[in-house]
Amino acid sequence: MSLPVARSRRARGRLTDGREVFYFTTRSSPFVAASDRRRLGPVQPVCELRHDPLLGTWVMYGAHRQDRSYLPTPDACPFCPSAHGREGEVPAPEYEVVVFENRFPSLADTGDPELPEDEPRLMRNSPGRGRCEVICYTSDHNATFADLGPERVALVIDALVDRSVELGRKLGVEQVFCFENSGKQIGVTQTHPHGQIYAYPFVTRRTRAMLASARAYRQRTGGNLFDDLVSAESNDGSRVVISTDNWVAFVPHAARWPYEAHLYPRQRRPDLAALSPAQRAELPEVLLDLYGRFARLFGKPSPYIAGWHQAPVRQGRPGFACHLELFTFSRTADKLKYLAGSEAGMDAFANDVLPEAAAAALRAAGGGGGLVSSALTARAAPPGRG
Amino acid sequence: MSLPVARSRRARGRLTDGREVFYFTTRSSPFVAASDRRRLGPVQPVCELRHDPLLGTWVMYGAHRQDRSYLPTPDACPFCPSAHGREGEVPAPEYEVVVFENRFPSLADTGDPELPEDEPRLMRNSPGRGRCEVICYTSDHNATFADLGPERVALVIDALVDRSVELGRKLGVEQVFCFENSGKQIGVTQTHPHGQIYAYPFVTRRTRAMLASARAYRQRTGGNLFDDLVSAESNDGSRVVISTDNWVAFVPHAARWPYEAHLYPRQRRPDLAALSPAQRAELPEVLLDLYGRFARLFGKPSPYIAGWHQAPVRQGRPGFACHLELFTFSRTADKLKYLAGSEAGMDAFANDVLPEAAAAALRAAGGGGGLVSSALTARAAPPGRG
Repeated sequence: MSLPVARSRRARGRLTDGREVFYFTTRSSPFVAASDRRRLGPVQPVCELRHDPLLGTWVMYGAHRQDRSYLPTPDACPFCPSAHGREGEVPAPEYEVVVFENRFPSLADTGDPELPEDEPRLMRNSPGRGRCEVICYTSDHNATFADLGPERVALVIDALVDRSVELGRKLGVEQVFCFENSGKQIGVTQTHPHGQIYAYPFVTRRTRAMLASARAYRQRTGGNLFDDLVSAESNDGSRVVISTDNWVAFVPHAARWPYEAHLYPRQRRPDLAALSPAQRAELPEVLLDLYGRFARLFGKPSPYIAGWHQAPVRQGRPGFACHLELFTFSRTADKLKYLAGSEAGMDAFANDVLPEAAAAALRAAGGGGGLVSSALTARAAPPGRG
Repeated sequence: MSLPVARSRRARGRLTDGREVFYFTTRSSPFVAASDRRRLGPVQPVCELRHDPLLGTWVMYGAHRQDRSYLPTPDACPFCPSAHGREGEVPAPEYEVVVFENRFPSLADTGDPELPEDEPRLMRNSPGRGRCEVICYTSDHNATFADLGPERVALVIDALVDRSVELGRKLGVEQVFCFENSGKQIGVTQTHPHGQIYAYPFVTRRTRAMLASARAYRQRTGGNLFDDLVSAESNDGSRVVISTDNWVAFVPHAARWPYEAHLYPRQRRPDLAALSPAQRAELPEVLLDLYGRFARLFGKPSPYIAGWHQAPVRQGRPGFACHLELFTFSRTADKLKYLAGSEAGMDAFANDVLPEAAAAALRAAGGGGGLVSSALTARAAPPGRG
């Protein structure tokens, strides 16, 4: 099966244990994947959701995940292409971009029946419906996202759009989150360059908070919170990192992480699939510029998380603004930000790096082809205390 | 100056740079502290608050904190008693429990003027009013909270009550949070046994979520969410860890952390100062039992955070239930839980340890004098899947 997506083609296969795998390619010839030659028993994840009545949100449980592989040696990397004698998760001798279901998922279509309604409302359980997928950006084990060329990044975006749309149509899925964790210091268990896609059967606490803020703002002012925020940051300029015809990246005025940038299309769109052709055409260069700045910030790799915030599938779509949030855990080259009592216990963040100083550092970390216009850079000089 | 507290006496002093220090003692003779002989310039913290309009919460900034001392060698510990040639934060040759203002605070009475009101509402700044204090539990550098005797724990509680009441009366303080971070793995910069006290000038996101849930629950059912939750967990029993006349500790049904226990007085109280004499009398043994179980869980120290959730000073007091939340970052003896994309990006937690299994492990980690009745232990056997 091959589905046309914006610039690329997709081929679908199945792994031995029944999981789906999708190959994305820029080639015009149809992609033929080898079949999975491993002997893997069928996946039997035990996923469960429980509702936290104090925070009003769901927690995902997957006891089977305790056994997942942890920092394998490079020659045993399960995300590298397969070769004779070394069979990994991808049964192909090479690939461009590949997506497959996570063998150790936090969410899965386990087919459990709904628990009976006489369960006390205070303690609600639900099967862990949903899907966790892995996306490998390249078959090169040692690359990073920032190393990819623009054509490859475009293919990655095609894959994220394809998966977001298809997962969003699955029964019970409320929200799709595409993200990347990078760095052993923050617990990444596979060093092969990859991201993840979570299809949640609920709207997350973070997204519900943003929707509630946007709703309250509209009631108070009649305006759209995201639009006004992007305008205010663009006009202020002191925290802008990248500014192009279609995109703007800035360190938010109240950033929670030491180095944090939010990337918005200038014209609001609810999700990646809704980006305009012009927005989508410019996105690869913008992303590579932004990731490159983070990669150069400390002269060595810094652990980061990047996540695409998209509108939920069913609610809040009209006012939501699709955007990327990218942030480091590094506060200096050698010191990490940890979530301690105030953050982990009270959701109250303390940040040692002022956002204007973070923005200045990210502007200074531009490569030769940085996308900040010099006029903007001049206007956006950090304030004295930065 | 000496203020009487429940069982103890307090003496107040000042450090060279103007910060306050409080000595708590069980002795009847007045405590005389030496004067601080260090030459320290006055503290000039640059604390600032900024409002995040998407999450609707405040972020604290303290750029001066980048320079705070980081894992000093034991003979340079600033929290040990002072001796000739080695002057620390506590200008006394020994102490029982001491509290002093943090030299590198996230919040401080900086006296900055309020920013002008023409500041756009989307980007609100505020001086970082409030207070950050350190509480040292013992002058023994190598002890842990679990090593303290019940009399010392009672004195620690006296100190937390004293500080919570006094800080809650300060201009602009909305909430007082007493917590402890333990473990270098989670970024603790001082290994001397100590906790912290934050007096926030706002109600934290976590507390606001709990207040909103309790309000919605009261409107829906007429009941109190905390009361019904404690009753439900007590009656269910499968996650109960400690059960006494006045206190119950359980792993919550929807725990977010691998090993997490919540400790509530059976009769709801808004804060530590409001505990009944019977509740307060029993608390030291209960706390030592609970901390001891976490200390024995993996046969070696495990990083943890413990925090006392108290009602805000001005709002939501009647329905709030004071309780302790204690949780590890360890999911096995050698593996940590990290906050990755789903947690840090979406506030959606995935937990690999089922709460019933965590509770069974914590029950099994009781010392000789564990406080779970055998009848309860029998009833609370973990379910088959635990």
